[in-house]
Amino acid sequence: MMIALEPIGTVRSLLGERGRVPEDAEATLEISSKFRDGLDGLEDLDRIDVIWYGHLSRKALRVIPMGRVEFTGVFATRSPDRPNPILITTVEVLSVDIDKGEVKVRGLDALDDSPILDIKQTGVLGS
Amino acid sequence: MMIALEPIGTVRSLLGERGRVPEDAEATLEISSKFRDGLDGLEDLDRIDVIWYGHLSRKALRVIPMGRVEFTGVFATRSPDRPNPILITTVEVLSVDIDKGEVKVRGLDALDDSPILDIKQTGVLGS
Repeated sequence: MMIALEPIGTVRSLLGERGRVPEDAEATLEISSKFRDGLDGLEDLDRIDVIWYGHLSRKALRVIPMGRVEFTGVFATRSPDRPNPILITTVEVLSVDIDKGEVKVRGLDALDDSPILDIKQTGVLGS
Repeated sequence: MMIALEPIGTVRSLLGERGRVPEDAEATLEISSKFRDGLDGLEDLDRIDVIWYGHLSRKALRVIPMGRVEFTGVFATRSPDRPNPILITTVEVLSVDIDKGEVKVRGLDALDDSPILDIKQTGVLGS
């Protein structure tokens, strides 16, 4: 069984290559018009979790974690290379423009063009 | 554009209805045989993040958060009812049986039969 997800938007960032990215990188979440009603209230949050899709990730089951030398199972790591590259980053909210569908954030380690799957309030109870 | 994800396994739990669940609920992550190599090393972790799919979620854009009375945009909440119900729970690892593909955990608020999309190391840097 496959699960089909429709991205809610796209990451616009200056990060165009794989690799480490600056922790203070700024990026824009471009949210598609049909999902913009879901942004109401986001302007009151300092931090959000961005759930994005690693569209350039490899589908690895075993990886060598950063700073280590031996392969381990990917589920024991946070490697971006994994069967379903659902990547989760907590970022700082800089501004929210609901009409334009633009959320500016700081600290997102997503490459330009990454599909956005979800945005969540961070730091509270709930899955 | 749609993104197709193949679940890596299925949640087995005693939770068969929507609603609040006990925080100490035990559950089993049944991992499909083709993904079991990714479990190597999981036995060394006390806690993991389980990324699962809310197969009974409603696709809401505006929700009333628990304990509140007014609707707000779903992306400013962690409601399970959302366009892409990718739900994330940090759980305690009780045991790992790679051959059987069984990971027993405590604290998972997922209903029985929920598809599992990913498992990640928790509490470290990385998306």
